[in-house]
Amino acid sequence: MKPVNLSEKLDQFTSHWDPHVIADYNDNDVMVVRFQGEFPFHKHADTDDFFLVLEGEMIMDIEGGSHYVKEGELFVVPKGVTHRPRADKECKVLLIEPKGEPNTGDTATAAPKPRL
Amino acid sequence: MKPVNLSEKLDQFTSHWDPHVIADYNDNDVMVVRFQGEFPFHKHADTDDFFLVLEGEMIMDIEGGSHYVKEGELFVVPKGVTHRPRADKECKVLLIEPKGEPNTGDTATAAPKPRL
Repeated sequence: MKPVNLSEKLDQFTSHWDPHVIADYNDNDVMVVRFQGEFPFHKHADTDDFFLVLEGEMIMDIEGGSHYVKEGELFVVPKGVTHRPRADKECKVLLIEPKGEPNTGDTATAAPKPRL
Repeated sequence: MKPVNLSEKLDQFTSHWDPHVIADYNDNDVMVVRFQGEFPFHKHADTDDFFLVLEGEMIMDIEGGSHYVKEGELFVVPKGVTHRPRADKECKVLLIEPKGEPNTGDTATAAPKPRL
């Protein structure tokens, strides 16, 4: 039970699309992640997907359009909605997903989500 | 389904200890709130309490000590733990709690959590 500094946690890795768990909130993993390039289109059948941009800018492609999400902005993708985050330049993001949820929506391709 | 700018939402009110809902994540309210002064000691029997400091600094008093939580830091109070957030100067916070959860832990004294 102590404060968690997001920047210090992000400094512990440099890989992209590789979420690291920094805290627990009920049955959710609270994670930091670096985005650069394009993630695959995917969806989460049973959960919303929470993104908060900490630094940089991301683009969220969803059914019906693309949304620029800037530093200090959050975007929640509702459950079942196909989406693709991407970023031309590196972007740092706070991500919240239920524990056990594959980040790709598919356990076969999901990142391991190590804890920092 | 669109980006939510935290700063723009915070600019829509000036009251303290008055959380406003800006997004939904599964069955949780995602809120912004301004802290200044002392909140009462309280606990949430059935849920963790998620705080992310967006601007300024808060102090979280809990059993066993006090923690300074600075801009860019998060603090999750586990369920059942008595706590008191306070701030000498105004502090802006992102708060996540399950829908229906009273911010004081008690429906009789809870803030209404209006939606922005």
